[in-house]
Amino acid sequence: MKKDCAYAAADLVKDGQILGLGTGSTTHYFIEKVGMRVRDEGIEVMGIPTSFQSSLLARKWNIQITSLDEHEIDLAVDGADEIDPNFNLIKGGGAAHTLEKIVDYSAKELVIIADDSKLVDVLGAFPLPVEIIPSSLNPVTKALEDMGGEVKIRMGKAKDGPVITDNANFILDVAFGKIENPISMEKELNTIPGLVENGLFTEMVDRVIIGSKDGVKFL
Amino acid sequence: MKKDCAYAAADLVKDGQILGLGTGSTTHYFIEKVGMRVRDEGIEVMGIPTSFQSSLLARKWNIQITSLDEHEIDLAVDGADEIDPNFNLIKGGGAAHTLEKIVDYSAKELVIIADDSKLVDVLGAFPLPVEIIPSSLNPVTKALEDMGGEVKIRMGKAKDGPVITDNANFILDVAFGKIENPISMEKELNTIPGLVENGLFTEMVDRVIIGSKDGVKFL
Amino acid sequence: MKKDCAYAAADLVKDGQILGLGTGSTTHYFIEKVGMRVRDEGIEVMGIPTSFQSSLLARKWNIQITSLDEHEIDLAVDGADEIDPNFNLIKGGGAAHTLEKIVDYSAKELVIIADDSKLVDVLGAFPLPVEIIPSSLNPVTKALEDMGGEVKIRMGKAKDGPVITDNANFILDVAFGKIENPISMEKELNTIPGLVENGLFTEMVDRVIIGSKDGVKFL
Amino acid sequence: MKKDCAYAAADLVKDGQILGLGTGSTTHYFIEKVGMRVRDEGIEVMGIPTSFQSSLLARKWNIQITSLDEHEIDLAVDGADEIDPNFNLIKGGGAAHTLEKIVDYSAKELVIIADDSKLVDVLGAFPLPVEIIPSSLNPVTKALEDMGGEVKIRMGKAKDGPVITDNANFILDVAFGKIENPISMEKELNTIPGLVENGLFTEMVDRVIIGSKDGVKFL
Repeated sequence: MKKDCAYAAADLVKDGQILGLGTGSTTHYFIEKVGMRVRDEGIEVMGIPTSFQSSLLARKWNIQITSLDEHEIDLAVDGADEIDPNFNLIKGGGAAHTLEKIVDYSAKELVIIADDSKLVDVLGAFPLPVEIIPSSLNPVTKALEDMGGEVKIRMGKAKDGPVITDNANFILDVAFGKIENPISMEKELNTIPGLVENGLFTEMVDRVIIGSKDGVKFL
Repeated sequence: MKKDCAYAAADLVKDGQILGLGTGSTTHYFIEKVGMRVRDEGIEVMGIPTSFQSSLLARKWNIQITSLDEHEIDLAVDGADEIDPNFNLIKGGGAAHTLEKIVDYSAKELVIIADDSKLVDVLGAFPLPVEIIPSSLNPVTKALEDMGGEVKIRMGKAKDGPVITDNANFILDVAFGKIENPISMEKELNTIPGLVENGLFTEMVDRVIIGSKDGVKFL
Repeated sequence: MKKDCAYAAADLVKDGQILGLGTGSTTHYFIEKVGMRVRDEGIEVMGIPTSFQSSLLARKWNIQITSLDEHEIDLAVDGADEIDPNFNLIKGGGAAHTLEKIVDYSAKELVIIADDSKLVDVLGAFPLPVEIIPSSLNPVTKALEDMGGEVKIRMGKAKDGPVITDNANFILDVAFGKIENPISMEKELNTIPGLVENGLFTEMVDRVIIGSKDGVKFL
Repeated sequence: MKKDCAYAAADLVKDGQILGLGTGSTTHYFIEKVGMRVRDEGIEVMGIPTSFQSSLLARKWNIQITSLDEHEIDLAVDGADEIDPNFNLIKGGGAAHTLEKIVDYSAKELVIIADDSKLVDVLGAFPLPVEIIPSSLNPVTKALEDMGGEVKIRMGKAKDGPVITDNANFILDVAFGKIENPISMEKELNTIPGLVENGLFTEMVDRVIIGSKDGVKFL
């Protein structure tokens, strides 16, 4: 199911495009299929990865890597942890949402791919990841609790202590319950000093492609 | 003049308080005078520094260092690059405004000390410092230009390449001309993905103490 | 068994000492018992933690936190992943070995605590962790392979992509097989450009305290 | 003079090569001349920059940027702060010596370019830059003083507090006086826990090209 929607997204890619390459199991199928098109159809594309893993995979498939320092993105394809009917998202389960937001926001077109388990009526069952400057742990936690969140610092499993992000920060997973107004919450969260970026992605998505056992749906 | 207002602020400090210690030449006089009170009057205070230099100076004066991980701040004293009549500030000339905002925002009381050259009718003659994730340089620059800013990346003088902040980020100095609505601009800037924190400090300041050749004024 | 040797180490602590606080399950018992002595005997000590978790635990037990910027360490107590008969160690399973080496090396006395499963005749069954600058991944991997190592980058489990250390670096786990000469290998590894610190701790340990089902042994 | 030796080095570049691009005023002439050859002769090369500035300049001249994650380096060209008769170097005036050492060390051939003011009989008039983990400031300073060095932390000029390197570390400038044995000193320095990389480059240089008022000399 993941594979189907990812492959459908890869068919949208046009020769010569600069691609934003999201992170996660679904987008990895996307990169794979783009790589096949490079090999089989000879299309020329360049990729701007949002993570080390996407970068590795793109190189494996001979997709040339570039960066936002050199090119603008025509099409970004990314996954999500939750998607509501207005195409608002929660992302950040992989702790990479800051770079994903930079890449996705700067793309001319943003396509989200996911299996249908990610569709929700209201965001919030998945705790919202927020990336914070480590020294701000206590005041940011307090500010999030004042907004009604239950806050847990994400601990590492392959290292002692908290997960450290690629930007050398911490991740807090914040259970708000139902997030009735994600657009205003996204803005409000970013006003908290020390909070670098939150995992709400609102008003950014152009298209959602869903894989289910009934096939691929373009929303 | 700087010294006078800084010393006046140090007289506000009460025995037993946790202090936020700002950065810069004016606040360094504040730390010095607090240190004298520790030595001469035997008051017991602890300091949470916003920079390496404030930390060094506090230790020199035997002010015990602590952190936001251990204590909340009763009183923060900090400087500013510009102050408007509504106590809105521009800070960040020293590239330390992210930690300063974390500290100042979490303090129960925030006092700004400065000489009268920092008072302006409208903020904006001093280019606004914003701290950004390095990989977001191009999209953030474009977003700031779309808002009417002239953007310069701050280059190092004691190192090759850009200034790197204590959080491993870049600084952009953005000339917006007159900033007529600093409150909404502070919020808007923080919605740009990749922009970690901007140097506008609005709706945070409890008191301003100004040093001038006519003496110290409490605003 | 862990608890017994950790508690024995805590009994070595003297009133007024500055302690280096290692990381891991065994040293956490050490911190706990020091905390009990602070509470029950009223000894005054300060702790310099090697990780976020040790710091949290020390605070919970009202052990005052300080740093190498303010104090020198009298006694450091730390765990190990392997210990050979000459008191050479492998550390770094928790990805914190760089700070642990800074702290342990600067201590006047270093005591290692572990259960007897950590004792080995020759180091090397446990793959050696080395911390590297991310951009040096390929050349460092090649240099380590030239030295006979099998190299794996440590991947995150609570984040996508590689584990990021508290210093914003990567961890390589390097299987060398038996490490016959750990003293010279420790030096040689640190000459590789991009390799920040390796997990071999040689010629540093003053005492080893082992917990086993037969009781506590001081080596 | 700088320009002449830099241009001579650029003439060594062969079509198809992967180039390591050093940092500083002399190597910037090298990048410029390589760019002219790309434009005028149509040679195809890719560059791996050691700094943001080299990266900017390479892009300006349409030299395609790549990284050590994707390619190995055929030829690295870099500057130096001091060069002795055995081609040992001091580098690090620009605080970029860690990445420069990674790049230069991994290159199949390393060429150093400089004007003749950089030639010395014995290294050491230029204080040796070493990059350190910030929390290790005190113990590393002490270790360097024990080795006979006079240690100064490098302070920022365009930011408050110490210079922060691209790896988020501090720089110490260490005056050792004459460095009689740079080869053993380079190794010894890297054994100090917390010291990430020092500015001694020994046994690495294949060729030195010197510019003087008498013309270009190949050493």
